[in-house]
Parts: sequence; C-alpha cells; structure tokens
Amino acid sequence: MTEGSKSAAETLRRGHPRHRDEWGIEFSRIVAFSDGVFAIAITLLALAIDVPQNLPPDTTVAEVLEGQTGDILAYAISFAVVGKLWLSHHRFFSAVERFDSVLMGLNILYLAWIALVPVTSEVLGDYGEDPAGVITYAAIMVAVSLTFQAQIVHAYRSGLIRPELRDLERHVVGPANFLIAIVFLLSIPVALVSPVVATLMWPVIFFTGRPLADRLAALRS
Amino acid sequence: MTEGSKSAAETLRRGHPRHRDEWGIEFSRIVAFSDGVFAIAITLLALAIDVPQNLPPDTTVAEVLEGQTGDILAYAISFAVVGKLWLSHHRFFSAVERFDSVLMGLNILYLAWIALVPVTSEVLGDYGEDPAGVITYAAIMVAVSLTFQAQIVHAYRSGLIRPELRDLERHVVGPANFLIAIVFLLSIPVALVSPVVATLMWPVIFFTGRPLADRLAALRS
Amino acid sequence: MTEGSKSAAETLRRGHPRHRDEWGIEFSRIVAFSDGVFAIAITLLALAIDVPQNLPPDTTVAEVLEGQTGDILAYAISFAVVGKLWLSHHRFFSAVERFDSVLMGLNILYLAWIALVPVTSEVLGDYGEDPAGVITYAAIMVAVSLTFQAQIVHAYRSGLIRPELRDLERHVVGPANFLIAIVFLLSIPVALVSPVVATLMWPVIFFTGRPLADRLAALRS
Amino acid sequence: MTEGSKSAAETLRRGHPRHRDEWGIEFSRIVAFSDGVFAIAITLLALAIDVPQNLPPDTTVAEVLEGQTGDILAYAISFAVVGKLWLSHHRFFSAVERFDSVLMGLNILYLAWIALVPVTSEVLGDYGEDPAGVITYAAIMVAVSLTFQAQIVHAYRSGLIRPELRDLERHVVGPANFLIAIVFLLSIPVALVSPVVATLMWPVIFFTGRPLADRLAALRS
Repeated sequence: MTEGSKSAAETLRRGHPRHRDEWGIEFSRIVAFSDGVFAIAITLLALAIDVPQNLPPDTTVAEVLEGQTGDILAYAISFAVVGKLWLSHHRFFSAVERFDSVLMGLNILYLAWIALVPVTSEVLGDYGEDPAGVITYAAIMVAVSLTFQAQIVHAYRSGLIRPELRDLERHVVGPANFLIAIVFLLSIPVALVSPVVATLMWPVIFFTGRPLADRLAALRS
Repeated sequence: MTEGSKSAAETLRRGHPRHRDEWGIEFSRIVAFSDGVFAIAITLLALAIDVPQNLPPDTTVAEVLEGQTGDILAYAISFAVVGKLWLSHHRFFSAVERFDSVLMGLNILYLAWIALVPVTSEVLGDYGEDPAGVITYAAIMVAVSLTFQAQIVHAYRSGLIRPELRDLERHVVGPANFLIAIVFLLSIPVALVSPVVATLMWPVIFFTGRPLADRLAALRS
Repeated sequence: MTEGSKSAAETLRRGHPRHRDEWGIEFSRIVAFSDGVFAIAITLLALAIDVPQNLPPDTTVAEVLEGQTGDILAYAISFAVVGKLWLSHHRFFSAVERFDSVLMGLNILYLAWIALVPVTSEVLGDYGEDPAGVITYAAIMVAVSLTFQAQIVHAYRSGLIRPELRDLERHVVGPANFLIAIVFLLSIPVALVSPVVATLMWPVIFFTGRPLADRLAALRS
Repeated sequence: MTEGSKSAAETLRRGHPRHRDEWGIEFSRIVAFSDGVFAIAITLLALAIDVPQNLPPDTTVAEVLEGQTGDILAYAISFAVVGKLWLSHHRFFSAVERFDSVLMGLNILYLAWIALVPVTSEVLGDYGEDPAGVITYAAIMVAVSLTFQAQIVHAYRSGLIRPELRDLERHVVGPANFLIAIVFLLSIPVALVSPVVATLMWPVIFFTGRPLADRLAALRS
C-alpha cells in the first residue's frame, strides 16, 4: 500500500470530517437522500385519507368527505409540520460545511423518525379524539426535534458548521428547535385531559422561530 | 457575535430573498424536493387502479379490466393534468432567480395540493359518474391553480423573477394558469347537472396556453 | 416589453429546442423527474408481493412463500424489464443535446406507461397462468417501446441528438428498441394458446441489443 | 457514418468503461437512481406498521401499539440495516471512478434486493417469532451482501476504482461486507433452533466495520 492510498484509507476509515467541496458528491448525496425521504414521507401522508367505498349512486360531496374530517385535518397538520421540519433541515444543512460519521448516523436516526410520520399521522387521523392518538403523534415529534437538536449540538461542538453561521445555529436555530420539542412534550399531559386542546397547542411551533430569533438578535447586538 | 456572523444571521432570520447562484444548493434543493413530490404523486396515481381478485381461471382480458374503466380514465386524466402542472412549475422555477420565505411557504402549500391528487384521482375513478367525485376533483384543481397564481403574482411583485422574463410570467404564464382555475371552477356547477359534460370541459386546459400566449404576444408586438 | 424580454418570451412560448448547456437546470430536471418516476415504479414493484396473514405459529419458509411464486416471478421479470428500460432511457437522454416540447410531451406519455408497470406486474403475478394476465402485461410493454420509438424518431428528425451519435441512435438503438416491441407484440397471440410459452419469449429482449448492434456496425464499417 | 460517430458508437455499444468526469451526467444518474431506490425503500418500511382499526373510544396508547411490537422492532432493525447498506453503497460509489455495463447490471440486481426489503421486513414483523420469518429476512440480506461483494470484486479487478482507494476497497471494505454476509448466513441455522437468538446476532454487523479496518490497517502499516 502506498503512502497516498494509506492516507486516503485513513480518512475513509476514521471518518475524519470531510469538507463539502472536497467530497462534493457524497455531501450532495446525503442531502439528496434526506430530501428523498422527506419528499416520499410528505407525499405518502395523503394515502392515510381513506376513499369511502360502495357509496350509493348520486352520492354527495358531503357523503364522500363524511368520516374523513379527522384524516383530512391530520393531513393538513402533518404536511405543515413536515414542511416546516424540511425547511429547518434544509437551512441547517446549508450551514454545514463538513460532516462526520456521527452526524451521518444522527441524520439517519432523524430520517427514521420522519419516515414514521405517515403512519403516525394515520393514527392521529383515526384516533385524534382519543388521548392515545394525540400522545403517539406528539411523542414522535418530540423524538424528531430532540434528534435534530443532537445534530445541531454535535455539528456546533465538532466545528462542522461554516464559521460565520456557528453562533446563529447554536443560539438561534437550536433554541427555536428546542421550543418545538417543548411544545409537543407539554401537549402530552394536556392530551390526557383534552386531546383537542393538546392539538390546538401545536400551531404555536409556527410562531416560535421568528420572535425568538428577534429577541436573541436584540440581546446580542 | 462578529459583524460577519451577524449579517449572515440577519439574512437567514429575515428571509431576505436569496440569489439562485449565491445560494445554489438550497435553490436546487427546493426544486429537487418539488420534483420529488411531483414524481411520487404522479407514480402513485397508478395505485388507485384496483387489481380484481379471485377471478376464475381462464379469465379474459375484458374480465380483468371490467369495472376498472373509471379508474383507468381517472389515471389518464390525472397523469396528463399533473404532467402539465409539473411542466408549468418547471418553467416557472426556471424563470425565478431568487426566492424568499413567502415563495417557499406558498410552494409547500402548492405541493400539499399536488400530494392530494392521487387520493382525489381515486375518488374520481370510483365516483366519476356522480357529481360528488367530479366536484371533489375540480375543487382540488382550483386550489392548485390559485396557489400557483399566488406564487406567480408574489414572485412578480417581489422582483424574484429574472428581469427579462418578468413581463412574460405576469402577462402570459399568469393568465394561462388563471384560465385553468376558471375551467375547473366552471365545471363545478356543470357537474351538478351532468358529471360527464363537466369532465369533458377539462381537456380545454391543454389548449389554453398557446392561443392566449399568441394573442398576448400579438397585442404587445 | 423590451426587445430582450420579447425574444425570451418567444423562445419560451414557441418551445424552440433548447440546448442542454444553455438551459441546464431544466434539462437536468426532466432527467431527474424521469429517474424519480423510474425509481419509484421499480421500488413499488415489490409491494405487489403479498405477505400471507394469519399463518399458524411455527410456520415454515415454504408456507410463507406458498402462493407467492407468481408474485415473486412477476417481480423478477418486471425488475429486469424496468431496469433495462431505464438503462435505455438513460443512454438515450445522454445522447440528447437539446429538447423541445414534443419530446417533453412524449416523455411524459412514456412515463405514464412506466408508472403503470407496478399495477400491471401485480396483474401478471395474480393471473400469470391465464392469457389475460400475460396479454395485459405484454400490451403495456408494446405501448412503452412504441412511445420510446417515437421519442427516438422525433429526436432524430428534429436534430435534437448530439451530431456524433445521430446515426447510432437511428440505426442501432432505434431498431434494438423496435425489436422489444415486436417480441412483446408476438407474445400476445402466443399467450392465447400458452401463457407460459409467451412469458418464456420475453427474455429474448435481453439478448437483442448486442447482436443487432454488432451486425449493423459490421454492415456499415 | 463518420469516423467520429463510429468511435462514439463503438464506445456506447461495447460498454467500454467510462470515466466519471467524461460521462458525468450518466454517472450521477446511476448514483441518483440508486439513492432514489434506497430512499423509497427505507421510507416504505414504515408502511408495514399496521394501524389498528375500530378500537373503542378512549383507547390507550398501549392499545394502539398492542400487537405492533413486532412491526416496530422490524422497522427499527430494517431502518438501521438499510441505512448501513446505503452508507456502504455511498462510500463505494464515491471510490468508483469509472463504470462498465457489468457494474451497472450488478447494481440493478443489488437494487432488486434492496427494493424487496420493505416486504421482507413486513414478513419479519408478522412472523419474527417463527424461524420462517427470520430465515426469509436473513436470506435476502445474504443475497444483498453477496451482490455487493460481486460489485466490489468486479470493480477492483476491472480497474474501475480510483487508484489510491483500490487496496482499501479490496482489503478493507470487501472483507467488512463479506462479514455481513457471514453473520446473516450463520443466523439461518440458528433460527431453526431459536429465532430470537438469530435476530440478536444481527447487530454484530454494526461493529464489524471498524475493528476489521483497524486490524487490517495495523497489519499493513
């Protein structure tokens, strides 16, 4: 084995962080793979909406939709949530300049939660008025945001983020994501009392990003 | 926080429009994500065609296809419609040179309608002779084209379109898309009287683009 | 409307052929979209294999597989066929240097047949011993290859193929693809007599490409 | 036919290995197609988790999850295994600098096994306590790793790997992958005695890569 091959071998074996330009193809494959899982999961959400069978002729739109209200609401919630998660993932990975094997492992774990969303959304659609359906859904979302938190923290600590964005990821994106975990976590005990109120807590996550970012930016300027 | 990181933070937080070259990876990810949703939705359309079970041995092709006429017609219509929508989306995004958070949000809403098409197409296949099936399908298409309209108008007003294509998008692509919304909207009251006639109105959308474009080009030259 | 915008408008409206470098993003989107449909269709093939339910405890592998032989054979055939079609599509589009709206329309029609393969493969798995299942499958494959033929012929006639590959596409790739259409077409009457013999004709398509290419190359050198 | 077209024709026909830069689009399409199949297969894994229907109101989380333990465990195992396979595939193809038709054929065969994993995972979820379910799953994994082994060996022998990584692929990646085949192969006879013990053998594959690589690196330095 020559010197050259040994050092290349070292790099591959040890999983030393790689620069996104130097290993452009692999980095873009990780990003493309993640996007693929997101795109498939978000499109499969709609399959949880049942098409009622054997309705009589001259059925009305109301009859077609009847009994699907839960499924349609679950679709709307999940599409919005997965869309938001994808945007966050998209922003985070555009700030990452290198990756290592831990980040890749965490990303695969993260995608394992994302791929579960269509099934969890089906549970929410079918059992959204029971504490069980709401808690199952919220628990997956807590897992998603905590895994994303681990990605942000690891990338920050291991210096995998572009220098000019490090403070931002650590002090703005991180806390904003952490708040999502907290909202879903708090909704779990609430669901035991009222599943509807628990569900109404979730839209808060769509308002957390900006105010927090503003406050933090104000504090630090 | 340094000056550099603060200005980068500002940009990310406020969602100032970003140039497609400067932020190449993200722009291509949005486009790839949209294409992914389109590709999955268009391929899932075929799953709405039921394979009849437990037919007797020496069954004929006619017996295999029997009862699937509605499903096959719905597949043909939906593949053509989604294909056309994808081409429009493809043309529109090749004219966009920057994006902002509103355009991204509208695009996710747009994709939420697209991902609903396979289920809506199944409804059309099963209830295409009832007003309900046709109206459900047409309503989704009105929602799709109005959301696309909002994307075009917003991109035009916020100056996100390449300068040399702005007039085109505003005065040709926009009206052509708006006509699609009108065709599907008009088919809704018609479906109450005759679902078949309503369905026969839809192919008009495949002829709207060119004549309108020709007329507008003639007016302005 | 300025001169510049008018000429850009003209180009977009008339669908003049575009060079792959000049309009790189769109060309790569068409290719990526096609690959997406292929990848989804080929992966969905496996979903046609039923998992038997409610087998007794201590069931054997034989019992799990029992009754799935048809499904598994259909999967093997379809994966090989779709894989071959993808390779042909891949080679063809790497020879295309420009595209126009006719080629895009034909490509969408082509993808509409490809997206039907998972359902057709399910029919073959369930009714592969009946003429009906085999004929349905063969008919879709005839449609696929004739649509691909139309793409090759149109691209050749409209000068959309890289100059150095025009003769090749016209005189080698075209005839090789045409032979696939013929093999599947001939298997249709044969299936009326013996579905098994008809199915055994199909592997011929995996041997057509090379000998034909060799003979043609020999003739012309 | 000109000289130029004849030589281009030769190259296409004979499938001479192509350099990844020279034929960049095709190489990236193969990689993207493979990633697409991986992303779809890994996301479809979750669909094997059944959502229980018709549970009574005020059902508990325990009741929703009841009977799904096998499905959820199978999902966790399969996501980890497919994730690891994707990482290996990803590393291998980043070391490949050229491809030929044999490598492409082997890759399609490899993807045919990968696309089977969702169905096989469903079998494991439903029959994971029977030898049959465990053996079916292990057999597919043996097929996956042997096909990957064939890709590594072929690429090495035909000089398709970047020179500086040849020894690594041959002496580190190859043996590490071979060990995966052996682990799953050995679990088959064990499953006949105890399916649970057989399943517990599988996590070994997550520890094989590094120690082996370390030992080999130590031997050769």
